[in-house]
Amino acid sequence: MFRKASGFIFVFLSVAAFSAVAADWQALPEQAPAPADNPTTPEKVELGRMLYLDPRFSSTGTVSCNSCHNVMLGGEDNRPVSMGVHGKTGGRSSPTVWNSAFNSSQFWDGRAATLEDQAKGPVVNPIEMGMSELEEAMDRVRDIPGYRPYFEAAFGTDNPMTVDNAAKAVAAYERTLITPGSAYDRYVNGDKEAMTEQQVRGMNTFASLGCVACHSGAAFNGPAMSPGSGFFARFPTFTDNDYVKQYDFTSDEGRMAVTTNAADKHMWKVPTLRNIALTAPYFHNGSVKTLDEAVRVMAKVQLNQDLSDAQTADLVAFLMVLTGEFPQQTMPQLPPTPGRSIVH
Amino acid sequence: MFRKASGFIFVFLSVAAFSAVAADWQALPEQAPAPADNPTTPEKVELGRMLYLDPRFSSTGTVSCNSCHNVMLGGEDNRPVSMGVHGKTGGRSSPTVWNSAFNSSQFWDGRAATLEDQAKGPVVNPIEMGMSELEEAMDRVRDIPGYRPYFEAAFGTDNPMTVDNAAKAVAAYERTLITPGSAYDRYVNGDKEAMTEQQVRGMNTFASLGCVACHSGAAFNGPAMSPGSGFFARFPTFTDNDYVKQYDFTSDEGRMAVTTNAADKHMWKVPTLRNIALTAPYFHNGSVKTLDEAVRVMAKVQLNQDLSDAQTADLVAFLMVLTGEFPQQTMPQLPPTPGRSIVH
Repeated sequence: MFRKASGFIFVFLSVAAFSAVAADWQALPEQAPAPADNPTTPEKVELGRMLYLDPRFSSTGTVSCNSCHNVMLGGEDNRPVSMGVHGKTGGRSSPTVWNSAFNSSQFWDGRAATLEDQAKGPVVNPIEMGMSELEEAMDRVRDIPGYRPYFEAAFGTDNPMTVDNAAKAVAAYERTLITPGSAYDRYVNGDKEAMTEQQVRGMNTFASLGCVACHSGAAFNGPAMSPGSGFFARFPTFTDNDYVKQYDFTSDEGRMAVTTNAADKHMWKVPTLRNIALTAPYFHNGSVKTLDEAVRVMAKVQLNQDLSDAQTADLVAFLMVLTGEFPQQTMPQLPPTPGRSIVH
Repeated sequence: MFRKASGFIFVFLSVAAFSAVAADWQALPEQAPAPADNPTTPEKVELGRMLYLDPRFSSTGTVSCNSCHNVMLGGEDNRPVSMGVHGKTGGRSSPTVWNSAFNSSQFWDGRAATLEDQAKGPVVNPIEMGMSELEEAMDRVRDIPGYRPYFEAAFGTDNPMTVDNAAKAVAAYERTLITPGSAYDRYVNGDKEAMTEQQVRGMNTFASLGCVACHSGAAFNGPAMSPGSGFFARFPTFTDNDYVKQYDFTSDEGRMAVTTNAADKHMWKVPTLRNIALTAPYFHNGSVKTLDEAVRVMAKVQLNQDLSDAQTADLVAFLMVLTGEFPQQTMPQLPPTPGRSIVH
């Protein structure tokens, strides 16, 4: 297959159109799937966007979902590890919210099966939004009169202002945060001029090196999984190299901390590579500053391959074309609490 | 004048239209004035909005102008005092950015004459955005390739990426953050049904008590001043009451800290009352939680008046109608630094 594809490249070189090694190259769907119990509706999306951007549900009133998963940037914060209330930091780098709808589990360690579950986590994490319990956060939502009509429009008038419904709204909004339309997608959809020769070469290297073993599928985050089962991989796989120590890849035990199962030590959710150019610094601990270095690290640590500079450049060129088109969004005016504040 | 106006109210009671004591009631202009050296252009506004919302120009990469002056809320953060990098806090409450274009000086102590000057302050304040110097912040802006076209469109191609131009762009954006169209504005423009009887009564009380002595003009922040001279008032004026101690109104010396002039002790910029319902908690130190209490405090501390509950309720009802219409804004996608981060 590789040889055949290479020949195909040769034929078309003169018209600046290049072909990739055959692999299961998939364009990103134009819509994200939604679970049966939370179909995506415009009303939920509108409410979810407001909740997502509203910092008043953190203990300090300064941290919203968007603070660490910034939709005006690459869906995260470009920091090694995120900064929550009172300037607190933890050990992990924020995953991007863009295309998180296509993840088979959420968080680096897959401890949430769904976006709905994920949305509840940071609110009560003491180093993130710092609320003592979800109902305390929800009491604040309920204390803002202007939110009620949005909850009623989205969930009906029978006790709509619940934690579960707030999480559903945020998840519904996040399912609209997808980025089809990248050069890669156009290429896969038939526009053979959408990618340069180098980008196609990088795509072929991506396949031939074995990156696709984990980073498969439309979002480059693994195969579709049955509900509740995430797609995980061991990282680092090859530990006999300088990178593992230099970037401290082993002190965080990954999924084992969630399952307490020794087999899950250093197992991590395979993250999407969509918009990977926008989410530096890299890896679960944000220890690697550039995409260039991240590519070299991955090849060595996961595939025991030492890349040439040319291979690295080609792979980076390919990863750059996974940056998609971002939907235009209106900035909401968040409902007020006239004459008082709910932040104390 | 008061009697005549009262008679006028009587006549129209039956059609739910009420008239105010004659004072210099002014609607908010539909456009904010701009200085001769920084005319407002769409290109500057677009660039300014991006810079305003971009957190990458703070030392931690977590604090943008919008963090403390949130345009999705009442133009501030609903906190007593704001929280900057590393969770640091100071002694003053964020003034609203909405209608700040109509202030005759900026900051609580008027230490900036213009929006352009103001924009530079928080960037290098160690408890706000925490950059060591403005050029360090500007180096970050210059390090983001996608900003260059926006600076060139706004300021031409001859060295456009300067601190002064960045400040001009932010100021130009802020001049679009105005909120005409409140019920008060509609009332003043002739729609006598735009305000209720109680609201008109509150408006009359506002005039008759003497609030208008300082809170005059279209933005209720004093008269138009010649460039560079702000409009200040002493606060607290009457100190022989419990409020002054209870809310610690005297430990911050206000404008004196800027001018070192003893005459400026406890002098403060007269803040706008536009959207005052949205900016709790109140006063320079954010010590007063509700608008209700703020009204009682102001009457006592500035006018030595003890308000009745009815007067207080009327005044609050009036202040509530100073909430304007907020322009719909598009959320920008901020220019990336592909494959790397400028936040360290």
